[in-house]
Amino acid sequence: MNRLLASLFLVALAWPAAAEPRGTGDLGIVIERAAGRVAVVDRAKVARLATVEGLGDLSHAAAVFSPDERFAYVFGRDGGLTKIDLLTATVARRVVQSGNSIGGAISEDGRLIAVANYEPGGVRVFDADSLELVADIPATERGDGKRSKVVGLEDAPGNRFVFSLYDTDEIWVADFSAGATPAVTRFTGIGRQPYDALVTEDGRFYVAGLFGEDGLVLLDLWHPERGTRRILDGYGRGEQPLPVYKMPHLEGWAVAGNLAFLPAIGRHEVLVVELPSWKQVAAIPVKGQPVFAMARPGGRHVWVNFALPDNATVQVIDTETLTVADTLTPGPGVLHMEFSPRGDRVWLSVRDKDEVQVWDAASRRALGALPADKPSGIFFTSRAHRIGL
Amino acid sequence: MNRLLASLFLVALAWPAAAEPRGTGDLGIVIERAAGRVAVVDRAKVARLATVEGLGDLSHAAAVFSPDERFAYVFGRDGGLTKIDLLTATVARRVVQSGNSIGGAISEDGRLIAVANYEPGGVRVFDADSLELVADIPATERGDGKRSKVVGLEDAPGNRFVFSLYDTDEIWVADFSAGATPAVTRFTGIGRQPYDALVTEDGRFYVAGLFGEDGLVLLDLWHPERGTRRILDGYGRGEQPLPVYKMPHLEGWAVAGNLAFLPAIGRHEVLVVELPSWKQVAAIPVKGQPVFAMARPGGRHVWVNFALPDNATVQVIDTETLTVADTLTPGPGVLHMEFSPRGDRVWLSVRDKDEVQVWDAASRRALGALPADKPSGIFFTSRAHRIGL
Repeated sequence: MNRLLASLFLVALAWPAAAEPRGTGDLGIVIERAAGRVAVVDRAKVARLATVEGLGDLSHAAAVFSPDERFAYVFGRDGGLTKIDLLTATVARRVVQSGNSIGGAISEDGRLIAVANYEPGGVRVFDADSLELVADIPATERGDGKRSKVVGLEDAPGNRFVFSLYDTDEIWVADFSAGATPAVTRFTGIGRQPYDALVTEDGRFYVAGLFGEDGLVLLDLWHPERGTRRILDGYGRGEQPLPVYKMPHLEGWAVAGNLAFLPAIGRHEVLVVELPSWKQVAAIPVKGQPVFAMARPGGRHVWVNFALPDNATVQVIDTETLTVADTLTPGPGVLHMEFSPRGDRVWLSVRDKDEVQVWDAASRRALGALPADKPSGIFFTSRAHRIGL
Repeated sequence: MNRLLASLFLVALAWPAAAEPRGTGDLGIVIERAAGRVAVVDRAKVARLATVEGLGDLSHAAAVFSPDERFAYVFGRDGGLTKIDLLTATVARRVVQSGNSIGGAISEDGRLIAVANYEPGGVRVFDADSLELVADIPATERGDGKRSKVVGLEDAPGNRFVFSLYDTDEIWVADFSAGATPAVTRFTGIGRQPYDALVTEDGRFYVAGLFGEDGLVLLDLWHPERGTRRILDGYGRGEQPLPVYKMPHLEGWAVAGNLAFLPAIGRHEVLVVELPSWKQVAAIPVKGQPVFAMARPGGRHVWVNFALPDNATVQVIDTETLTVADTLTPGPGVLHMEFSPRGDRVWLSVRDKDEVQVWDAASRRALGALPADKPSGIFFTSRAHRIGL
């Protein structure tokens, strides 16, 4: 990374910009995990605009955005749910809604924020304006007086939230289309210990990974009456020769055309699965244990980052030839990648260099960098317009 | 439409809202064709916020949005290119850049606005900030001292614009990735009289319809070196028994899963084409001559409107059963449809009722309406984040 070049992008801006109106379609946030704060960024100008403090424990933090792309909802590890006003760079609302949580989602209509909780196990749903509690959905009791942890919480069309119960092997669909009291459909015995999940970009399929056995579970949200079914029975920790340094993120799974690209668990491979059959058609050798495999918008390439000891590297897969087209070395601790919505650029969190790098996704040249304190997740407001993010 | 219900949505708002900051992800515009003006709307609140006047001839007008979703660029029929500031509801810039034009596009990086011109035939490209001319690309001379009309201008990944030359049977790709002077690639003899075109949602395929013969022309933008190829040789006016009341819009073509849904020309059918083979697999009987066939985001349904005498009707196709699931009668003169980005709602221009109707796309119930003077195109800012719109 050329520091001189990078400095060109460090535009010093007065912020919040007084009475100057501005659009919000090009904003984003970067999680500064260790410091419990987020940076507000302008992805078009490659500028850090402001810092918002006081968000608590941001390990594994994620964010969603209001439909008007003005507010970010940040889900902390400590049960904190913080609503940030990107235009004023202030905390608009904040609640600590549980003792231990893991991500959340915003409803299709933008009116409800749902949070997945470990402790107490269940899902709590809040009004997106006020952050007042709208609905509490306790998970199944697991026998020791506690309730199951909830993981893999995703939004789906029809104002539904879909999530998995780690301890009791269930997938639940909570339908808020009729108002604040959800209709909950429970799928039981779906497979041992679902640990993470995704919803496909079209909002049709919910896929959960299993920690307690090999394989994945698929729920067709167009046909919930058909129940869940197992896919990719070989996918998992199983009899892997390699230890697993970091479980891959399912939400990062890439779909390009009719192919999905999945980080293998433990192995140095990205798996290629054909849709809608969900059958594996290839395994692409890569440098390390993949964490995220993310499609560049348009689907021409998939970018992959890795667990230790290979987390200084990013590889780019050509989705036509199913081979590695490029190997990049942004630096140690590449934790997350976020594409511009049309796919011309990609931002990379490089934790151990305390910077966020901006790359041209076509030429794969670094364009610049912004300083950030141990950056992890990067989230652009364009996510507001997408299903299942 | 229940006028009492509708009136509930006529929120009276002071606008522009002084120093109140607001996001721009939920804004949009409605073309009031006859009056030469546009309405600025809030799609979340279902509110008409402001009116912007003085846009000239807005027959067949279209719009694109800046990446920050603050500015709309409106392409008029009379060569007018108007940049509207949605936050202040004012004309930020306006140029009359030709005598007769037909649509335009914004580059991937948001810095260039291209306009397709009939007179003089060619493409002119403007700086998105200033609307100063950046590049002039005259079309091929057609032999009578004039140049070919340009149609089907679309943006594509890599800061490319792709367009068709109606009179000289060509498709050109103008690549601005190296700066203001484009590298132009010309495909000649592609088929007689290309009259409109689309780019698929992934930015890969450019498809042009032919007026002078049956069939379509496909250009794979991942592989321009392979040249163009003909697809769907039966598609066209050909030996149709029915007169064509209105040529369908290609840009409205819907892709759901691996199926594309195309309005047939002249016939009362929506054609179903399988990708990536581009072979026809079904023809769905519908009420009239289809104009737009648009996929609800997520791809569960395709909504279809019609030419006269059936333009009071909208039909909804189930993309699994390939049958008509619903027939709606919004009223005479349904000219355009625009979905919310996650697909929960759809707005319909009902010209002869002077209103824009808002429907729940899942239940297919009318939620309300906004007054509009002979509305035609509806465009939401979420288009800013999409390729080929």
